[in-house]
Amino acid sequence: MTAAVLASFADWRAAQQAAVEQALSRFVPADAPAGLGEAMRYAVLDGGKRLRPLLVLATSAAVQGHAEAAMRAACAVELIHAYSLVHDDMPCMDNDVLRRGKPTVHVKFGEAQALLAGDALQALAFELLVPGEGSLPDAMSARLCRLLALAAGADGMAGGQAVDLASVGIALDQPSLEAMHRRKTGALLQASVTMGAATGTVGAPALAALTDYGARLGLAFQVVDDILDVTADSATLGKTAGKDAAADKPTFVSLLGLAGAQAYADAALAQAHEALRRSGLAETGTLHALADWVGQRNS
Amino acid sequence: MTAAVLASFADWRAAQQAAVEQALSRFVPADAPAGLGEAMRYAVLDGGKRLRPLLVLATSAAVQGHAEAAMRAACAVELIHAYSLVHDDMPCMDNDVLRRGKPTVHVKFGEAQALLAGDALQALAFELLVPGEGSLPDAMSARLCRLLALAAGADGMAGGQAVDLASVGIALDQPSLEAMHRRKTGALLQASVTMGAATGTVGAPALAALTDYGARLGLAFQVVDDILDVTADSATLGKTAGKDAAADKPTFVSLLGLAGAQAYADAALAQAHEALRRSGLAETGTLHALADWVGQRNS
Repeated sequence: MTAAVLASFADWRAAQQAAVEQALSRFVPADAPAGLGEAMRYAVLDGGKRLRPLLVLATSAAVQGHAEAAMRAACAVELIHAYSLVHDDMPCMDNDVLRRGKPTVHVKFGEAQALLAGDALQALAFELLVPGEGSLPDAMSARLCRLLALAAGADGMAGGQAVDLASVGIALDQPSLEAMHRRKTGALLQASVTMGAATGTVGAPALAALTDYGARLGLAFQVVDDILDVTADSATLGKTAGKDAAADKPTFVSLLGLAGAQAYADAALAQAHEALRRSGLAETGTLHALADWVGQRNS
Repeated sequence: MTAAVLASFADWRAAQQAAVEQALSRFVPADAPAGLGEAMRYAVLDGGKRLRPLLVLATSAAVQGHAEAAMRAACAVELIHAYSLVHDDMPCMDNDVLRRGKPTVHVKFGEAQALLAGDALQALAFELLVPGEGSLPDAMSARLCRLLALAAGADGMAGGQAVDLASVGIALDQPSLEAMHRRKTGALLQASVTMGAATGTVGAPALAALTDYGARLGLAFQVVDDILDVTADSATLGKTAGKDAAADKPTFVSLLGLAGAQAYADAALAQAHEALRRSGLAETGTLHALADWVGQRNS
């Protein structure tokens, strides 16, 4: 990309990240009882790159989608992502104490409150998609709820987590590793794209191409994650580095080596760009830039 | 009620419980990966009185509602209820080992799998409400999702759990205890009624009366629960008896005494019956019978 395009993407990203932060702050209730609201806000606000919301917003823009639906969908996927991190960090799962450079939710608020905050964030995600005052068309709300539920559930993120847990110490082959990540992180990243598309009108071939873009980008994201787990330090990551190897979890690096994993990520991103070109949509510059961003991230 | 009415309610209840069991068995996936499906099905199938599904189905029948929507909503509320029990039983919450006469999910499958099974059940609840093949009107799906999300979230069940956790060892007054239970158990019981109503067409006064019925019945249910925690044994309950007192939790019995709590439950049920009469709906016999059933249950 040229310097001008890069600068304009950085500007777009900063503006959208701020808008998402503001919307999340409005949506996540400070007044939920008995400290629950505080734990929910701690889990969600002021952290993260907001990749999933940015994917929703960029895809919605590419299909001239409904602006309020796009922001609600952006926040909904981020709430699902945030709740999964809260539960994933708990002692019975990854038992992690550091997330986004801060103590994890259960360290700060206790395990019971972390469990409940995660549960409440998942419910809130669906609530956001059905505002109840008619500001979104019902068909759009219904479609968004379905896409999110499928991505979050047993055939998506939660199922991927279960496979992840069961695969500690097991040498997965590449198809099995891909299948796990397609669920664990891929499903929600892909849903970010398909939900963005669902805020507008798009033909079947373009939707198929966007869906493929989401899948390729999701896989690339995970491979880069595996690479960073080895190459970056905890301070840069804002979470504990090296924990996959410590937990004896299969990763793309353990399977392909560092150089092989990097080549795999590059190939997946090239396929993501190719899928975008195949979509025939005119306004895909931001989606291209997001794919580059996924490849270049260092935390 | 006459013997004939009682017999016909018992028949209806048995038939609907069987239908709900069958639908849940169809909806909760056996093939979710890495044992997750097994844990989900263990948490949901072959247990419980199915009070919430029965409320959905009876209310839907009273408003001549959409039959498939009613069964999907009935299963969705039961999945939310089931997931809340799984998470509630975990060591970081109530740390209970017995539920419906069987080992709790985390005892049987481990804490991580229990956490994920609960999470996946919540997602599945919303998925059921949006079948995706056009069998439910979008407006109905959207309304059902909204009612369920509100009942499950920070202002409903999850919020009530947070208050419950925070109130151990604290002498709540009656309004505070009512407010906690209105969220913790009342919200989902009330949503069972309002979701049943949302599967059909009902005027605002009738809906208000049904909503009131749900609220009164929800409160009565909790008071009876508190009474049974003191008077029944674990074998009859299928869960650990006496645990509220052991945990020094405020209950209607600790607040009002046994006789006072029984009088309170009777009064709440009388108000539930009165609300039904006020609804002006013709076919409320089953809803009346369900209120009686809540008052008479011994487990």
